[in-house]
Amino acid sequence: MTAAGPLSGVTVVDLSRILAGPYCTMLMTELGARVIKVEPPERGDDARHYGPFVNGKSAYFQSVNRGKESIALDLKNDADRAVFEDLLGIADVVVENFRPGTMEKLGYGWDVLHARYPKLIYASASGFGHTGPESKRPAYDMVVQGMGGIMSVTGHEGSPPTRIGTSIGDIGAGLYTTIGVVSALFHRAATGEGRKVDVAMFDCQLALLENAIMRFFVSGKPPGPLGARHPSITPFEVFTTQDGHVIIAAGNDALYRKLCDGLGRPELATDARYLTNDLRNQHVDVLKAQLEETLTKADTAHWMAVLDKVGVPAGPINNVQQAIEFPQAAARNMLVTVTDPEMGSMPVVGNPIKIWGFEDPTTRDPAPVLDGNRDAILKALGRA
Amino acid sequence: MTAAGPLSGVTVVDLSRILAGPYCTMLMTELGARVIKVEPPERGDDARHYGPFVNGKSAYFQSVNRGKESIALDLKNDADRAVFEDLLGIADVVVENFRPGTMEKLGYGWDVLHARYPKLIYASASGFGHTGPESKRPAYDMVVQGMGGIMSVTGHEGSPPTRIGTSIGDIGAGLYTTIGVVSALFHRAATGEGRKVDVAMFDCQLALLENAIMRFFVSGKPPGPLGARHPSITPFEVFTTQDGHVIIAAGNDALYRKLCDGLGRPELATDARYLTNDLRNQHVDVLKAQLEETLTKADTAHWMAVLDKVGVPAGPINNVQQAIEFPQAAARNMLVTVTDPEMGSMPVVGNPIKIWGFEDPTTRDPAPVLDGNRDAILKALGRA
Repeated sequence: MTAAGPLSGVTVVDLSRILAGPYCTMLMTELGARVIKVEPPERGDDARHYGPFVNGKSAYFQSVNRGKESIALDLKNDADRAVFEDLLGIADVVVENFRPGTMEKLGYGWDVLHARYPKLIYASASGFGHTGPESKRPAYDMVVQGMGGIMSVTGHEGSPPTRIGTSIGDIGAGLYTTIGVVSALFHRAATGEGRKVDVAMFDCQLALLENAIMRFFVSGKPPGPLGARHPSITPFEVFTTQDGHVIIAAGNDALYRKLCDGLGRPELATDARYLTNDLRNQHVDVLKAQLEETLTKADTAHWMAVLDKVGVPAGPINNVQQAIEFPQAAARNMLVTVTDPEMGSMPVVGNPIKIWGFEDPTTRDPAPVLDGNRDAILKALGRA
Repeated sequence: MTAAGPLSGVTVVDLSRILAGPYCTMLMTELGARVIKVEPPERGDDARHYGPFVNGKSAYFQSVNRGKESIALDLKNDADRAVFEDLLGIADVVVENFRPGTMEKLGYGWDVLHARYPKLIYASASGFGHTGPESKRPAYDMVVQGMGGIMSVTGHEGSPPTRIGTSIGDIGAGLYTTIGVVSALFHRAATGEGRKVDVAMFDCQLALLENAIMRFFVSGKPPGPLGARHPSITPFEVFTTQDGHVIIAAGNDALYRKLCDGLGRPELATDARYLTNDLRNQHVDVLKAQLEETLTKADTAHWMAVLDKVGVPAGPINNVQQAIEFPQAAARNMLVTVTDPEMGSMPVVGNPIKIWGFEDPTTRDPAPVLDGNRDAILKALGRA
């Protein structure tokens, strides 16, 4: 049940595997596109072999490939290449996340594709991109998390290296690639021209760092790990309460004054050290200690009620279960149900891009079995 | 110097401030759109007051608003509202990241806008979205990082709470909002219909968690902090070397065997405990110890050379300076120069979405001064 959406009518031929490319094409299915996975025979997408498994099938694969179709093709076999080329003939977009050079070796480099299918959009998500001296270097999520700098600003001073707890190397690249593909579709609607979109996971890490790079150039010093606070805004961090923690984010002077009132500490609002964000940032540690004198006297639930009442942005630190049980998740249909013939029903994350006038269904079709849509695809191509 | 790009000809009226909305509209300028910031008189975008400062001007603001225009309008003043409505008349997209309800209070809710400007696309990035019981709850980046679960899977067992070192709450929402806006532009090209795009920062955190949510449903237990390793792939983590660390990401069996060969540990390749990824995942700690027996005997540079040679994805943990000095960053034009009349020249992050056939210039226009484009904008509207 592909939802009708802004990309309805768009057909994507998807050579990608594991996460960066599949995340992009999953978002495209959420927006209404038809995605046909072209997988190597027998083994299929590597992610089919990543755990955890439910009744022998990969939940990892299910979660990011729901709603797609699959055909197994050996791109080194002439008969299969003919099928693949027919597919390209009906496609609007082809997506791959091979190491640069692989498509050229297969005879499907951009020059060849563009000459033969001038309206086709070709999107590549690779570790380091299709240009530059390090283009062919292999990468996975964690390699670019390390090389791109985000791990150096995450964690606590002196703590061991800390990976971002989600695959931001892959998912980040998937997001920027999606923006590139949809932009190219918009451009094609006006001009009829296909374009190549070349996204590097490494480049995306730099793009995600944004603020940290600016801080490096201003200070001349590479920023260190930030613990649990914002580098430029104060108070904007995790505070200790009587029974745990609360995050308080007072992003401007008015919010800061509301915070002081809410905590019953009006003298902090008028303290000369704390009058502006810049001053508060210079005195971040002493201000934190003063706020915690009060915050440690009651529990997180108490302070959440107080802060909600005075309108200061604040929140608890939720684990994954608490996050998805926050009422807004269900109200926004952020967990949808996939029913797989072997795995049964399981919730997966819904579509965070809500667009007025399109349905936001509560279920999704399961991920395809390897080659599971061969007959229907061949038939539609006039081959069966 | 707005680059010609796939969104050339698109005009965005941008009411957004700080980061989530401005990050979306910055990406749109990178893709060729014209972005007109509409800011409150006198104070302007809150981010103009966030450090660090260079010659009294905010580098934080510069970095995310380069290439945009600015006009100051008081949306509670009738004369200014008339100008704003003229702007909406020439706009393709309006973007805001107010608290839900603010646009309605101003008389510019979706119903009003859609009735009056049926082709206009209206995009909102808010903390918790425009629907649901918690819609009006205020949020900043860190609040949704905490409430959305990503902090619960980041860091080390027993370590204090750890914020992602970049503003992934804001930037994540900016990315999904951009996908929504460009998808709506594509849809409008076919149908002429404007749509509303409603993105919640909280929803985006769940979407970024993806894999962790799937693991929760499979195991029934909320996943804890993962330290510096991947939850489902082994070996895929940070290893200690003689002088520091190296990240090794052997994402499949073939890469694992290459790793064992490269390290001169062929017995690990054939060890029954380590034959498949699933088995390796079950024995992650003992495998790590065995690999580190070898890795601690030489330095990171040595192992990087070895792993590059055998083709195993690997990398060092770079700080921000090392990341941007990696040769690929310059080769991919990932640092571009903004020259501001007061601040001088400064590098900012370039565009990670490389699209064939569009220029990728090495410079960008500076961020606007508050109200800096008033005369030209009014003139173009026939008002001066």
